[in-house]
Amino acid sequence: MDIAIIGASGYTGGDLVRLLLSHSKAKVTAVTSRKEEGKPLTSLHPGLKGLCSLSFTNPDVNDIDADFVFLAVPHTAAMNYAGILKERGIKCVDLSADYRLLKDVYEKTYGVSHTAYFKAPYGLCELHRDEIKGADFIANPGCFPTGATLAAAPVAKFAHTIIYDSKTGVSGAGTSPSSTNQYTNVADTFSAYKWTNHRHLVEMKQEAAGLGSKANCYFTPHLLPVNRGILTTAHILLDEPMSQEEVEKLYNDMYRDEFFVRIQNPTLAGVRGSNFCDVNVQCDGKRVVAVSAIDNLVKGASGQAIQNMNIMCGFDEKDGLLTAPLCP
Amino acid sequence: MDIAIIGASGYTGGDLVRLLLSHSKAKVTAVTSRKEEGKPLTSLHPGLKGLCSLSFTNPDVNDIDADFVFLAVPHTAAMNYAGILKERGIKCVDLSADYRLLKDVYEKTYGVSHTAYFKAPYGLCELHRDEIKGADFIANPGCFPTGATLAAAPVAKFAHTIIYDSKTGVSGAGTSPSSTNQYTNVADTFSAYKWTNHRHLVEMKQEAAGLGSKANCYFTPHLLPVNRGILTTAHILLDEPMSQEEVEKLYNDMYRDEFFVRIQNPTLAGVRGSNFCDVNVQCDGKRVVAVSAIDNLVKGASGQAIQNMNIMCGFDEKDGLLTAPLCP
Amino acid sequence: MDIAIIGASGYTGGDLVRLLLSHSKAKVTAVTSRKEEGKPLTSLHPGLKGLCSLSFTNPDVNDIDADFVFLAVPHTAAMNYAGILKERGIKCVDLSADYRLLKDVYEKTYGVSHTAYFKAPYGLCELHRDEIKGADFIANPGCFPTGATLAAAPVAKFAHTIIYDSKTGVSGAGTSPSSTNQYTNVADTFSAYKWTNHRHLVEMKQEAAGLGSKANCYFTPHLLPVNRGILTTAHILLDEPMSQEEVEKLYNDMYRDEFFVRIQNPTLAGVRGSNFCDVNVQCDGKRVVAVSAIDNLVKGASGQAIQNMNIMCGFDEKDGLLTAPLCP
Amino acid sequence: MDIAIIGASGYTGGDLVRLLLSHSKAKVTAVTSRKEEGKPLTSLHPGLKGLCSLSFTNPDVNDIDADFVFLAVPHTAAMNYAGILKERGIKCVDLSADYRLLKDVYEKTYGVSHTAYFKAPYGLCELHRDEIKGADFIANPGCFPTGATLAAAPVAKFAHTIIYDSKTGVSGAGTSPSSTNQYTNVADTFSAYKWTNHRHLVEMKQEAAGLGSKANCYFTPHLLPVNRGILTTAHILLDEPMSQEEVEKLYNDMYRDEFFVRIQNPTLAGVRGSNFCDVNVQCDGKRVVAVSAIDNLVKGASGQAIQNMNIMCGFDEKDGLLTAPLCP
Repeated sequence: MDIAIIGASGYTGGDLVRLLLSHSKAKVTAVTSRKEEGKPLTSLHPGLKGLCSLSFTNPDVNDIDADFVFLAVPHTAAMNYAGILKERGIKCVDLSADYRLLKDVYEKTYGVSHTAYFKAPYGLCELHRDEIKGADFIANPGCFPTGATLAAAPVAKFAHTIIYDSKTGVSGAGTSPSSTNQYTNVADTFSAYKWTNHRHLVEMKQEAAGLGSKANCYFTPHLLPVNRGILTTAHILLDEPMSQEEVEKLYNDMYRDEFFVRIQNPTLAGVRGSNFCDVNVQCDGKRVVAVSAIDNLVKGASGQAIQNMNIMCGFDEKDGLLTAPLCP
Repeated sequence: MDIAIIGASGYTGGDLVRLLLSHSKAKVTAVTSRKEEGKPLTSLHPGLKGLCSLSFTNPDVNDIDADFVFLAVPHTAAMNYAGILKERGIKCVDLSADYRLLKDVYEKTYGVSHTAYFKAPYGLCELHRDEIKGADFIANPGCFPTGATLAAAPVAKFAHTIIYDSKTGVSGAGTSPSSTNQYTNVADTFSAYKWTNHRHLVEMKQEAAGLGSKANCYFTPHLLPVNRGILTTAHILLDEPMSQEEVEKLYNDMYRDEFFVRIQNPTLAGVRGSNFCDVNVQCDGKRVVAVSAIDNLVKGASGQAIQNMNIMCGFDEKDGLLTAPLCP
Repeated sequence: MDIAIIGASGYTGGDLVRLLLSHSKAKVTAVTSRKEEGKPLTSLHPGLKGLCSLSFTNPDVNDIDADFVFLAVPHTAAMNYAGILKERGIKCVDLSADYRLLKDVYEKTYGVSHTAYFKAPYGLCELHRDEIKGADFIANPGCFPTGATLAAAPVAKFAHTIIYDSKTGVSGAGTSPSSTNQYTNVADTFSAYKWTNHRHLVEMKQEAAGLGSKANCYFTPHLLPVNRGILTTAHILLDEPMSQEEVEKLYNDMYRDEFFVRIQNPTLAGVRGSNFCDVNVQCDGKRVVAVSAIDNLVKGASGQAIQNMNIMCGFDEKDGLLTAPLCP
Repeated sequence: MDIAIIGASGYTGGDLVRLLLSHSKAKVTAVTSRKEEGKPLTSLHPGLKGLCSLSFTNPDVNDIDADFVFLAVPHTAAMNYAGILKERGIKCVDLSADYRLLKDVYEKTYGVSHTAYFKAPYGLCELHRDEIKGADFIANPGCFPTGATLAAAPVAKFAHTIIYDSKTGVSGAGTSPSSTNQYTNVADTFSAYKWTNHRHLVEMKQEAAGLGSKANCYFTPHLLPVNRGILTTAHILLDEPMSQEEVEKLYNDMYRDEFFVRIQNPTLAGVRGSNFCDVNVQCDGKRVVAVSAIDNLVKGASGQAIQNMNIMCGFDEKDGLLTAPLCP
């Protein structure tokens, strides 16, 4: 199956190529970028030299020749491609935020008009597998909502308050240099940002509600001096106290058959470069502490996108996603 | 004034010497260590070469000849010195946990018998200045409780639940090599530890109660890939909603005259090497997010110990503590 | 083909398992460790959970049941296994130093008697491929000599002096905690060690001589605050000046057909987790600066060991080694 | 004495303020910045909040009202101020490159015309103290040449070749965000840059010649994942072999009375934030390895600038420079 990656110059583009090298059925045949047109992919992703000889192209969306498209352009740009791809019958996973929320919620949250809205399944694979099967367009979840929701999902409906305290690596800030991702502003330090109003909170609320939870959800992200990974500490206040055993059973029941969710002590190194989400939980009586670790570029973006593709296309869900974590 | 540092081989010992170099009235005249006896201080703290020519000694506590002692030995070791120093009339700040809690709470929390108990003021300077003045023995607070309590203090009594989500640098784990502080286990990764049962929680509860708070307190620490610093994100659930203005007024009122508490965006780099605690706060309706940043070895240990000495001795509270943060 | 890894608790053991997961013909069937016997492999390598369900065993070397063995035990321990494996006709790559040098050179360099000496090809694949083919025992090169020799090889015989200034990540110091690999001693700092007498210099000299070079070789390693990787800056003083073009041609001629040696700007991130050695060169008239980057655990250890296995067994040299670098 | 810092928005400006806080005779009374005019100094240097209440101004150079000026603007900008300050009789240390080289060498190296040339002492204090005394304008040395020259100085005249292999922290790249100083391009990686043609080589050659050396000098810098510091490994090839004792004696003789040059194992942490240069040396027969460590922003810029001021003005050379290294 021929794959085109639209917007392949960023980190998620690079990781899609990296991971798809080991896919048994899908082959990347086009990587596009407006700015980098004509340059070899390896001019931006030199690690791939010898492994991928494609160059960036910049085709009109109507001329894209592929069986499957990953949309890796920023939000508001994705909607310019999505409708056309849908009409042309090309299956697609969109890594932007453009189709993750209901139209009005999206417009309010992102402060823009949605010019090509349609409803698409939310591609948090472990929670929405049935909707994803057979779909031709998937909204790939945000990185924070993926880790946060997987941490809290088994107990969400028993909680009155869920506080997601998340810590992310710097690659989440993208490839453009800025004071936010400058080494001297990040290394050997740590800070919170968007303490109360990060847009990903809206996705978290949507997913909590979808799980039958009536909890008030709060979210505070922090910037870690690491390249990759998000660790979310979910502080979950229960309506009624539970025992450690009861809580563990809920997690085991939900994740026992999930290959990519492992119940073990979550650390960023333990999932680095891989599609795993490591989760564990401790119950403090009325507070449950559930911690999850993901690689923000893999399970939080490119890996989950491939997992969605595999489900959509009836492939083995693990195909292309068996790269082991790189630890240390 | 002659100062002896008992147990000067560790990081807090090193930082006491570093900071006291600039004190106008106190001079370190003895540094002790059982293991390092006879070696120059700079064999363990080479940064101090040229600035301090002392060598480690190992005197009997009865022979210590100093006007003031900093006890920088581990908990359970400190109680072997404290009573004797008190009897000898030598003023002392104890950096261990041995005198921070009531006897029974200490014994239960640390799982040991206290063989030399007496009551000592808890040296969180901003909250207990009056008790510290004139005292001859101070229990210097734990690093986490210092940052956490200063973050939540202004609103603690209006809350029903306080969740301290703290992130600490590696120097908090001490100078002995272990898998916990091994570079390859810490760098480029992140994880939680002692998710529900860290001993410092007991200090936090004691201080919250002292502030008139009836809130349930929870505490989850995490290990950061940084050398120094603790950032605490306090998620504070209020009994009644407040406005941002009301909350800010509470913080300004409490900290306006506190030199070492600055209300500004807290980052670890912004306080690195200094005695400052940077705090800021945002109100989310029913949740207040208050974040504090301290250097765990300074305001969280050696710096606050000196601040306590200054208050005890009637010196300028800032003496020896005007070293600016090193940023970047 | 069934693979046993003797001494699989360390970083090289973990990386052998990680990489061999994608090998089409070899399957790890036994992982041994004296200390960890009985524990699951994932107790030490939690990243591999879900991917490898083996537990550590501790068989007598005579009972090891495998077609191929990777010896990943420390030097002086390896010689206790090597002779027996050889007698038993089990092919082997030894990752220790025990068979890299001539007997007398080894004994002088390592200060021990070699109790089971035999001559084995030195497994620097790009330079010794013909000797490796068909061999049943290979001495896998040291991490520093691999990167250093590949940097200087094309011009070594034209030089009178070669100075290898190498910078290594911390994983090279192994998994045992020590002050050397303690986070607070490594992070945000940098230093040289064994300035003139690191044992790997002997391997470098042996390889330079094998390339027909009469150059005086010097080596100074440094410890970097990174997990993985060695960057070697080879300062090569030529007998006669060369032009940039002449030098580049020598490098292109030697490496044009080598899949794992890429001529491009070497950075540690560009090879992280992969078996690539990135090399580039600039000529300063009488000085050539050649820089190479490898992952010390992969091309510097486990990856090159697999590459040797592939050559020995007539497999595709790239089998199991196509994992792309993880960047960032 | 009133001090103005022209161009105080960068890292060297911040460190000048930080260090001068402890100076007994000099007081910063003006900090200028074209871009940041009107903002408080702490908007860019938040660590200084509570310690310095100045705001950025943007006066005409003729209106600067100060007894002493630190010029901390980029090269080519400094020459617009220097002549006027000289005419106005205001003493000055220029941290740019504009007055470090002879006019023709400067113009060739920096590719610009020098519009206000005059000859100024080169402010490497340990080598040029006599010229600095009484001077009214000093060219503060480059960061790399400071560490490199101090490493090689005692043996430079006995060498035929000196290779400076330097490794610098990221703060050397300045405060403007770029792909060079982006966290994800620097953290957990390492690389060389300007392998043969960094402009600081010209200063190194000038200083080596001044020491009576006829050695060929080479320089290759590398970028470290650390905030501050330069470690230079000088590989010095001697005309005639020397013993370790002979070499050590040369270093001791040169640096015995230098407060800021300490002969001990050089590490970046050991000098972090301080004006020290730690140096050590090992002799390999015909090769001397001399390693130096400095903080690039202190001994490599702001600290040495203050040291120069102290010498120029007849102050204690250590005044304002006794801040101990921050380690860890």
